[in-house]
Amino acid sequence: MAMVQAYRRISGGSVIYADSFRLTTCWRQFSTGFREERDTFGPIQVPSDKLWGAQTQRSLQNFEIGGDRERMPEPIIRSFGILKKCAAKVNMEYGLDPSIGKAIMEAAQEVAEGKLNDHFPLVVWQTGSGTQSNMNANEVIANRAAEILGHKRGDKFVHPNDHVNRSQSSNDTFPTVMHIAAATEINSRLIPKLKQLHTSLQAKTNEFSDIVKIGRTHTQDATPLTLGQEFSGYTTQVKYGIDRVLCTLPRLYQLAQGGTAVGTGLNTKKGFDVKIAAAVADETRLPFVTAENKFEALAAHDAFVEASGALNTIAASLMKIANDIRFLGSGPRCGLGELILPENEPGSSIMPGKVNPTQCEALTMVCAQAIGNHVALTVGGSNGHFELNVFKPMIASSLLHSIRLLADASASFEKNCSLMLVTSLNPKIGYDNAAAVAKTAHKQGCTLKVEAALQLKVLTSEEFDQLVVPEKMIGPTD
Amino acid sequence: MAMVQAYRRISGGSVIYADSFRLTTCWRQFSTGFREERDTFGPIQVPSDKLWGAQTQRSLQNFEIGGDRERMPEPIIRSFGILKKCAAKVNMEYGLDPSIGKAIMEAAQEVAEGKLNDHFPLVVWQTGSGTQSNMNANEVIANRAAEILGHKRGDKFVHPNDHVNRSQSSNDTFPTVMHIAAATEINSRLIPKLKQLHTSLQAKTNEFSDIVKIGRTHTQDATPLTLGQEFSGYTTQVKYGIDRVLCTLPRLYQLAQGGTAVGTGLNTKKGFDVKIAAAVADETRLPFVTAENKFEALAAHDAFVEASGALNTIAASLMKIANDIRFLGSGPRCGLGELILPENEPGSSIMPGKVNPTQCEALTMVCAQAIGNHVALTVGGSNGHFELNVFKPMIASSLLHSIRLLADASASFEKNCSLMLVTSLNPKIGYDNAAAVAKTAHKQGCTLKVEAALQLKVLTSEEFDQLVVPEKMIGPTD
Amino acid sequence: MAMVQAYRRISGGSVIYADSFRLTTCWRQFSTGFREERDTFGPIQVPSDKLWGAQTQRSLQNFEIGGDRERMPEPIIRSFGILKKCAAKVNMEYGLDPSIGKAIMEAAQEVAEGKLNDHFPLVVWQTGSGTQSNMNANEVIANRAAEILGHKRGDKFVHPNDHVNRSQSSNDTFPTVMHIAAATEINSRLIPKLKQLHTSLQAKTNEFSDIVKIGRTHTQDATPLTLGQEFSGYTTQVKYGIDRVLCTLPRLYQLAQGGTAVGTGLNTKKGFDVKIAAAVADETRLPFVTAENKFEALAAHDAFVEASGALNTIAASLMKIANDIRFLGSGPRCGLGELILPENEPGSSIMPGKVNPTQCEALTMVCAQAIGNHVALTVGGSNGHFELNVFKPMIASSLLHSIRLLADASASFEKNCSLMLVTSLNPKIGYDNAAAVAKTAHKQGCTLKVEAALQLKVLTSEEFDQLVVPEKMIGPTD
Amino acid sequence: MAMVQAYRRISGGSVIYADSFRLTTCWRQFSTGFREERDTFGPIQVPSDKLWGAQTQRSLQNFEIGGDRERMPEPIIRSFGILKKCAAKVNMEYGLDPSIGKAIMEAAQEVAEGKLNDHFPLVVWQTGSGTQSNMNANEVIANRAAEILGHKRGDKFVHPNDHVNRSQSSNDTFPTVMHIAAATEINSRLIPKLKQLHTSLQAKTNEFSDIVKIGRTHTQDATPLTLGQEFSGYTTQVKYGIDRVLCTLPRLYQLAQGGTAVGTGLNTKKGFDVKIAAAVADETRLPFVTAENKFEALAAHDAFVEASGALNTIAASLMKIANDIRFLGSGPRCGLGELILPENEPGSSIMPGKVNPTQCEALTMVCAQAIGNHVALTVGGSNGHFELNVFKPMIASSLLHSIRLLADASASFEKNCSLMLVTSLNPKIGYDNAAAVAKTAHKQGCTLKVEAALQLKVLTSEEFDQLVVPEKMIGPTD
Repeated sequence: MAMVQAYRRISGGSVIYADSFRLTTCWRQFSTGFREERDTFGPIQVPSDKLWGAQTQRSLQNFEIGGDRERMPEPIIRSFGILKKCAAKVNMEYGLDPSIGKAIMEAAQEVAEGKLNDHFPLVVWQTGSGTQSNMNANEVIANRAAEILGHKRGDKFVHPNDHVNRSQSSNDTFPTVMHIAAATEINSRLIPKLKQLHTSLQAKTNEFSDIVKIGRTHTQDATPLTLGQEFSGYTTQVKYGIDRVLCTLPRLYQLAQGGTAVGTGLNTKKGFDVKIAAAVADETRLPFVTAENKFEALAAHDAFVEASGALNTIAASLMKIANDIRFLGSGPRCGLGELILPENEPGSSIMPGKVNPTQCEALTMVCAQAIGNHVALTVGGSNGHFELNVFKPMIASSLLHSIRLLADASASFEKNCSLMLVTSLNPKIGYDNAAAVAKTAHKQGCTLKVEAALQLKVLTSEEFDQLVVPEKMIGPTD
Repeated sequence: MAMVQAYRRISGGSVIYADSFRLTTCWRQFSTGFREERDTFGPIQVPSDKLWGAQTQRSLQNFEIGGDRERMPEPIIRSFGILKKCAAKVNMEYGLDPSIGKAIMEAAQEVAEGKLNDHFPLVVWQTGSGTQSNMNANEVIANRAAEILGHKRGDKFVHPNDHVNRSQSSNDTFPTVMHIAAATEINSRLIPKLKQLHTSLQAKTNEFSDIVKIGRTHTQDATPLTLGQEFSGYTTQVKYGIDRVLCTLPRLYQLAQGGTAVGTGLNTKKGFDVKIAAAVADETRLPFVTAENKFEALAAHDAFVEASGALNTIAASLMKIANDIRFLGSGPRCGLGELILPENEPGSSIMPGKVNPTQCEALTMVCAQAIGNHVALTVGGSNGHFELNVFKPMIASSLLHSIRLLADASASFEKNCSLMLVTSLNPKIGYDNAAAVAKTAHKQGCTLKVEAALQLKVLTSEEFDQLVVPEKMIGPTD
Repeated sequence: MAMVQAYRRISGGSVIYADSFRLTTCWRQFSTGFREERDTFGPIQVPSDKLWGAQTQRSLQNFEIGGDRERMPEPIIRSFGILKKCAAKVNMEYGLDPSIGKAIMEAAQEVAEGKLNDHFPLVVWQTGSGTQSNMNANEVIANRAAEILGHKRGDKFVHPNDHVNRSQSSNDTFPTVMHIAAATEINSRLIPKLKQLHTSLQAKTNEFSDIVKIGRTHTQDATPLTLGQEFSGYTTQVKYGIDRVLCTLPRLYQLAQGGTAVGTGLNTKKGFDVKIAAAVADETRLPFVTAENKFEALAAHDAFVEASGALNTIAASLMKIANDIRFLGSGPRCGLGELILPENEPGSSIMPGKVNPTQCEALTMVCAQAIGNHVALTVGGSNGHFELNVFKPMIASSLLHSIRLLADASASFEKNCSLMLVTSLNPKIGYDNAAAVAKTAHKQGCTLKVEAALQLKVLTSEEFDQLVVPEKMIGPTD
Repeated sequence: MAMVQAYRRISGGSVIYADSFRLTTCWRQFSTGFREERDTFGPIQVPSDKLWGAQTQRSLQNFEIGGDRERMPEPIIRSFGILKKCAAKVNMEYGLDPSIGKAIMEAAQEVAEGKLNDHFPLVVWQTGSGTQSNMNANEVIANRAAEILGHKRGDKFVHPNDHVNRSQSSNDTFPTVMHIAAATEINSRLIPKLKQLHTSLQAKTNEFSDIVKIGRTHTQDATPLTLGQEFSGYTTQVKYGIDRVLCTLPRLYQLAQGGTAVGTGLNTKKGFDVKIAAAVADETRLPFVTAENKFEALAAHDAFVEASGALNTIAASLMKIANDIRFLGSGPRCGLGELILPENEPGSSIMPGKVNPTQCEALTMVCAQAIGNHVALTVGGSNGHFELNVFKPMIASSLLHSIRLLADASASFEKNCSLMLVTSLNPKIGYDNAAAVAKTAHKQGCTLKVEAALQLKVLTSEEFDQLVVPEKMIGPTD
């Protein structure tokens, strides 16, 4: 016990601090001085120009993992803003001092708008409940609200726990912001970008509807189809991808808020959970509701595993589409050469003039990452214990990462790759080859049955050729 | 070209055959002799007592991968029976000779009932389109139908291609049987077993509704809840799991049949696709429809990636539940000891009397396999090219494997583990601990605010204790 | 407790038994009657013609998961034969009755040779320590040894625990047979097949060393190389793959045997662990040693995760190679058409005459499965708790599955695909294209510097052409 | 063609630029103006205060994927510095103007030291060959070298292609920096942190060598062992983890440099590849060599898949260790309570005073991410085509991400968690329980054999107790 005490003293003290300070560079650079903040562990120095408090500072020093690029994703920070604003609003109904409540709402709104991002330095790799990011939000909002009310940072006029975190626990706030962030990002970022891609592919489907080309199965020449038909497959994949991710939303719209520490709702008032979900729904204009079962909502993140499964399917779809397009655009002389890909940048440092399918490459890399993130998330999702899954920040980060990458890469692909053209010469070549192959295929197919007929002059060669017209081979017969 | 010819001659000839024969033992043992079958490659020896033909035999010899336990899963074989029966029925509408059509239907019915399983020796690891299993079905049904009509095996009175496979291609039949098999297995095997598990967990939820116990977050003691509340989380997970897999069915009910080789429907008649989907729906009493886009249906298996994603989520859920139960049942003296697990078998060869959570172990192993199969399937699903995805047998096998394992393991878990009891002494212990911890937690929580009050004798110790009653801590206050 | 008793009675009794009996068909078919076997749970009916005993029978009834194709892999069964033989041998040194010891050795030898495979009906999805398969081995060997000594099955003249399992625990035998099986399968199955593939690819490398062709980067035409150079990349991949799997053997050669229940070696004699590893080494002619740390050897299966990582790398390599070959063989008219793939079977039921890269397809499906199995295994490997990882049978099965599939598919690919030819016309076309593209590339590359020179007639067109000769472009300059 | 031209004009022009400009904030903030840079695509505006050139700027606008946190990892940037320095050095031997060569070396050194990190704005999700990051390096170094020589940015006195990239291609430089970065990070970051963790666990092993505790198998009480023995298992896991990653280094030390565009080494001089590998070895003091086969080195990244497999194994090991420690530290009253975890921060916002295993949580989240990254990397690694794998930046980023996270989290765990203590009361309790359980286990084990003896007073109860002493149960008997 003495040892534990000693440890605590050291870790909160100046020696370790100096060391940590050297390593955590993010907040150091522009800091001009320090103020003292304190929590149940005692006092700790915090950069004067930062709004965070003691617990955030402690986490910074205890979790030097990965550096700045591993910071908690912005949608989580913004969602904390939304949640804390709503919590203050509902808490005022349950007796929170209105002047404090309003200041919290104002400060939280700034967080929701991303204005205070620089005050959220913590990385994903922290406590598995996201407690420290919850406290980061509480501390920043409390200090900012205090300032709004004319008080000083650190004096706890507005208290991070008693006021900002009132009726809440990290265990229910963090899953709540996970759901707010995921549902928002899906609705505002992913779906629009996928719809845009769908529209663009649909336009190609129409544009290419008369171009007859060779079909390929097993990567071998097969019977003909139109390029539009081929693109209609891609269009359908993207359309279903949108459906798939929409299917997962009902469970993402369920909020854990009100479950507090273990799901029982201890320390909240009856109705708090319903009211806060309604407030979040109102704020985001998304149909959030309180979770049917708070125990599930804290202890498992199946809704995220499920949503990630939808992203995984979309990744598989986009991988297929991008692979096809790069192969169809391969050449110019020794490839399939059916599409001309846009030349967006110099292709090669050693072979200038080469046009590479760079957007396909970025997109397929993103798909591979989303497939991998899905496994990471599944491992985290399957390893919850008892009343709390403690892989929350990783699960959140992984899903948001995939959403962002898939959305951005779809948009980039759509914008930079969708102007691809059909090779000017190839349709004719494709047509002829299609004809030839179809003929051959058909002839060989007929060997057992028709050969005799041909030899018996039942059909002339001309008559036979008239029967085999590629344009007539791209659909069922009447 | 000469070399290719030579190769073909050798591989179809007796030398290699002898070698293959030695290695493929499945069909050898009971064979009493051979007959000659032939295909476009020429003649080949086939065991007399088997119904398969030349192409099946060739595949047996060309794909000696994994041995008998890698055979195409039975649901695929049975689904071929269903499909070929329906195809014959619809083909009769389009002119197939009724006597042949009826014989095909009768033979196909036998396949659908699993009566001819022994005549399907091919493994999963074959042509990526499943062509050889399609031909296996065609050959077996043709030979069996010929027998029904009084003809001999191998004389092609009923022709595997012209009659049984009429208006079809492997490229559309195999994805069709994949969908029939998956939808059937989900409906008849997985959902019922999950519902049974759900019912059983719901019963425990009710049974345990009055047992107050300690909650655990971060694996540490937290505030109390009832054991029923804890089980309600599991119940909800399984309930949502059922919802999740149901969500994927609309896309599994879409059948590729009618797309033929590349999706265009070449060689079919208009309306064939709709009629055959209706026939399959009628036969299976499941709402199958023709796929909205046949190009997508052949070239991608996103519907399987999606369904596998639902299984992956269910695996994550069951892993969590089984992990919790084994930890809650840990002990008897040095564990958590809240549940008594049923003693289904002697526990240990060195420590007789030990009761192990064996059903939890089987279930979590199954979950790990389903998570892995999901990755395999995703890799296959993302690697289709042009008009055809050629990972079909692996994708089919992987999904059906996970469905079977998750269904069986859920049933086994439900049957053999659901009789677990609550430790007779522990509830009391749990109760006391819960009280103590809650008290401590509360006290510490109060430090900043109430301590003074206590010290100032605002509250007596007794009054304080009355305020802290675990039973009152398992929900929000009024 | 009464309830538990009641449960035990029922599950061992006739009602449930009848039900199980109906479902477990494997051992039913040829059974002509039953005998009574007993364990600490009491008596149970066992098919007369089977050598297994009470615990095996109980497991059959308690784990109806997946059916026959999920049986414990044969290499595990055989390795139990090897281990039990060695254990008897060493136990005789420590006082086991020699006549019993020798009978055990004889019976175990039969298991090692696969002669008693039919007596191992248990599936992978059982107790996570593999206890039941260990008992299956003990029971079969005990009964068989008793028969050898002229006693009856079931009379326990040779006792499964006291004699066959002497100084052992499931907890150390199962990881031991895992290691024996994996190391044996790698050495006798995987490495030879990979070496064969390597030899074959090396031969192609040499054969194709003079064929200049176009290189492709980003799937686009790039500078030329020889087909032999291209194949040298594949050859190197396979060579390194062999190195990779060899790298993992030192840790697979470490045997857990002697650790007994928790790693301490309780119930064994000093030196038992070293002697038994030596006996296994002697028996298998592989350099097995006793594990340096038995606690690690029981509680973790990092050696399997590691070996599976090597298989995963090999899968990635083979996927790349097979993909290249199928694309290089694409055509015949509208593909890359640089290779002619062997025609091993009729290609398509609707397009007879089509040659498909079926061996590439089987191989890539196998690779996808190995990649998925690796994840399953990793999930299992990461989830051990305290003194025992209880995902053992799944981990074992997963690795052995991948070994078998990769070995068989490599052999099948090598045998059936290695006769591929270079397209007769294409080298010329490839050459010309290579020249043209190289020229263009070079020209464009020169734009900034040489264009003026050309326009200024510094070089004639002929002089320029002489400078750009593809054959001179396939290596560095002097 | 007109359309492509139009597109190119637009994408290089002001409209799209403005849009991109709005979105790419990283380089905007401190830019005070722009200068014109140009490449083969024409002129483009670049922020004056940045050293990058036209191709970097174009990539910034074409790949708006993921934002700043997706920037190419710093070790890749630094490795470009090392490589370009070495290339200049070797190129001087082959005729590069020494004054330019030296300036390049000086500029490259600044990149190697991380001084110019702000001039590398490109994200991972770009061209799959990393071409644009190679050009970023070329452009920054060229401009900086020009400045060193007294010239202006953008005037190409030092040319990014002709001077900095001389004898190189993105296709060989990028895999080279991948290997330099990975090998360096493994040697300088991962191995030292793992060794530190190993040392710390070894110290615990020694410290705890006399504490007898209950063993647990299947999470159930088993026979006793010492806590030191338990920790020796962890120590061994980490030790082998170090061995595993070391095993992969020989293939990471192979450099692709000298292969240029497709592996043939076109445009380099003989010996260039060997010399540059030697220079890199000299610069880094790591045993880099030129790759045995350049075709493999460009077309595949098996060495990365392999190394990632080692990280995956380490992740599985650390997951197991961290899980054990959090469960052993669970409590304080209703858990296993064998360890006291350090209290590094306030535990819970609702339950102050609670000590959570936060370091275990951060570590296990990191492990899950590494397992997922491994899948992403494997998908990328298996999808190379022909002469070039175009998932390079993702593969690099994924491996470096895992290395960094595993190293940092190991260090954080070691630093913040290694002060854990053994519960003061528990050893006694553990001891008693161990004794009791061992006794029970033994007694039950004896039921069949010894009970009679006891009842027959062969042994007194005291004699029996003397035989069953936990301390004697932690190893084999003599």
